[in-house]
Amino acid sequence: MTDCVNAFVPGMDVRIEGAAGGPLAGLTFAAKDLFDVAGYPTGGGNPDWQRQNPIPERHARAVRTLLDAGATLVGKTITDEVSLGILGENAFDGTPVNSAAPDRVPGGSSSGSAAAVAAGLCDLALGTDTGGSVRVPASFCGLYGIRPTHGRLDLTGMLPQAPSSDTCGWFARDAATFARAAAVMFGEPVPEALPTRLIVATDAFGFAEPETRAALRPLVDRLAGLIGETREDVMAPPGLSVWGRAQRTLQPAEAWATFKDWVERDNPRFAFNVARGLIMGAGMPESELAWARLMRREARARLDFLLPPGVILCLPTTPFPAPGKNLPLPEQNAVREQILCLCAHGGLAGLPQLSIPGAGVDGAPVGLSIMAARGADMTLAAVARALAET
Amino acid sequence: MTDCVNAFVPGMDVRIEGAAGGPLAGLTFAAKDLFDVAGYPTGGGNPDWQRQNPIPERHARAVRTLLDAGATLVGKTITDEVSLGILGENAFDGTPVNSAAPDRVPGGSSSGSAAAVAAGLCDLALGTDTGGSVRVPASFCGLYGIRPTHGRLDLTGMLPQAPSSDTCGWFARDAATFARAAAVMFGEPVPEALPTRLIVATDAFGFAEPETRAALRPLVDRLAGLIGETREDVMAPPGLSVWGRAQRTLQPAEAWATFKDWVERDNPRFAFNVARGLIMGAGMPESELAWARLMRREARARLDFLLPPGVILCLPTTPFPAPGKNLPLPEQNAVREQILCLCAHGGLAGLPQLSIPGAGVDGAPVGLSIMAARGADMTLAAVARALAET
Repeated sequence: MTDCVNAFVPGMDVRIEGAAGGPLAGLTFAAKDLFDVAGYPTGGGNPDWQRQNPIPERHARAVRTLLDAGATLVGKTITDEVSLGILGENAFDGTPVNSAAPDRVPGGSSSGSAAAVAAGLCDLALGTDTGGSVRVPASFCGLYGIRPTHGRLDLTGMLPQAPSSDTCGWFARDAATFARAAAVMFGEPVPEALPTRLIVATDAFGFAEPETRAALRPLVDRLAGLIGETREDVMAPPGLSVWGRAQRTLQPAEAWATFKDWVERDNPRFAFNVARGLIMGAGMPESELAWARLMRREARARLDFLLPPGVILCLPTTPFPAPGKNLPLPEQNAVREQILCLCAHGGLAGLPQLSIPGAGVDGAPVGLSIMAARGADMTLAAVARALAET
Repeated sequence: MTDCVNAFVPGMDVRIEGAAGGPLAGLTFAAKDLFDVAGYPTGGGNPDWQRQNPIPERHARAVRTLLDAGATLVGKTITDEVSLGILGENAFDGTPVNSAAPDRVPGGSSSGSAAAVAAGLCDLALGTDTGGSVRVPASFCGLYGIRPTHGRLDLTGMLPQAPSSDTCGWFARDAATFARAAAVMFGEPVPEALPTRLIVATDAFGFAEPETRAALRPLVDRLAGLIGETREDVMAPPGLSVWGRAQRTLQPAEAWATFKDWVERDNPRFAFNVARGLIMGAGMPESELAWARLMRREARARLDFLLPPGVILCLPTTPFPAPGKNLPLPEQNAVREQILCLCAHGGLAGLPQLSIPGAGVDGAPVGLSIMAARGADMTLAAVARALAET
């Protein structure tokens, strides 16, 4: 297919028709190159990953679900190397173009999936979200993008990174298409009832840049109008930076455990910052890990307390819109750390989160996220659809 | 030219005739791809290095010296990434074949230069030696290979790594050719007089594996017969591992200083272990560096004391012959650390050292090194030539 935005893995033409007559008939989708597609190599965004793995004989579960529901697979998309990245710049495959802000990064690691949907090359695209890899590109590219409840969807055939945080999500351009896919992926209809209370996470809005906070205000107001009862509260009492620290302790250590055997056997090539992340994980002291596990337990308890059924919470998906491309590493690191502070609760607590488009700063999109109780993923679809109709 | 041993940089055909009638007329040479050759990119063994540098308009000084002396340049050779490696395995360009032991690594970082000379593709080849990058491949490939007195040769046009240790050396298959090149490179005739005393470095022989020690014995005996007065002494009273530690503190920190701007601007791709070495250098505490600088001063004083003019010292170039290819990283690291313990004195003290072939273990070459007083590089050529005639 024509790929004017460098969204698809070069040289890998994939097209698999969906089953006839399913609920997603007529829709097309792409899959991040971390998902197995039978008969095609799973590249994982790194030239040395593929050679250690045989070509898969089965589709990943998420791919099969969409195909069985009638959606047609039209390609595999570029990803940050083995999903280690948040900006979407792959030193080997290049940077997928963010159609909504072409001079900025698309966000990652599900960069190609976001770019493909944003450019209209397909209706849906599968991504993975461990530390923000669906939410961030959704925010930066102006898309709907979900991180489901951790543990809810079957991740068979998806390349893992940090299993205690890994999830499988997807992107769509509009709420109706997003909700159609959600009903299939979660096997539940979109509920009629909306939540009855909205919490506005004051610490998260405070962490965002003032322009982003201001840009999201109208969306928050519409959301409040839709839900009714609204109150402000602190999402992370210890500080978003403390939750961020806990996640940036646990996730790299788990990623190292995932990739250690491969790295030590094959000495693969990585962009410098990707190697540095793995090395940081390899050297994480057990004392830090022990603390981070305790903080994760507290984060889960906090969000479960804040979000009983019938309550949703909103926060800026990212503290700012997409930064420019090819930043020097020190600046890139500063940007990444700020982004991860607003994403860490996902990996720590595992609650479902949907980034909703509709705001922008200087013409670049920035998303508003809504979170719901563990397992209430379809509530997010209901809110998104209702909000789009307001 | 035909390159059956993957010695030359792929896709870069270089041939520049030497000046007519010079002292090296009739000889061919190759240059490690860290040396500038006018009109050709200097790749440095890393695909992202080249793009930051314009194509050089002048030859590196060492290249010019050999061309002016009549030798013909026939190619640029593969190197470990920006000279950071000791085994000669480049994840981008592949591993040059060690003709003397084809199932083993060639040694690095001047891997392609050693491979080209060992395979007879040229008579001489320029390399660089910061922490062992000429000495080690000379030992592993069964060649003459020199690390000159630090600071003696003009390094203009040679990609630096750790300037306080960087040197420019070369390989040859026979002592006569080596000595011809030495006379040109150092601008001195081969002296008639041989040294009058030989020191056998007992700590270095003790550090080598027993089979290597035994294999080198006949060469040491011939050398002792040639020189006459022979005594045993300890080269590194604090321990070769302590000198090794000092060098492995200073060199990575200096390499990071050399490459930091590039790395932070371009986020280049590296094999994992290369990135890890740079990161180790980036994080070296000043307290460690301060200690290592003091130890370097002591190492210099020790070797200057041991090696007045007229005295040479011998030691095994490497503790063992070339290891196998594609070792898992933990084993590779263990091998590397052992090798560097026998090489560290070069970077620390800066005395000239020549690795001489002529021994082997299980059919794989291993070299005997001779060292001389600072500036007495040509003494090494005289000894090598005389020894070859015994």
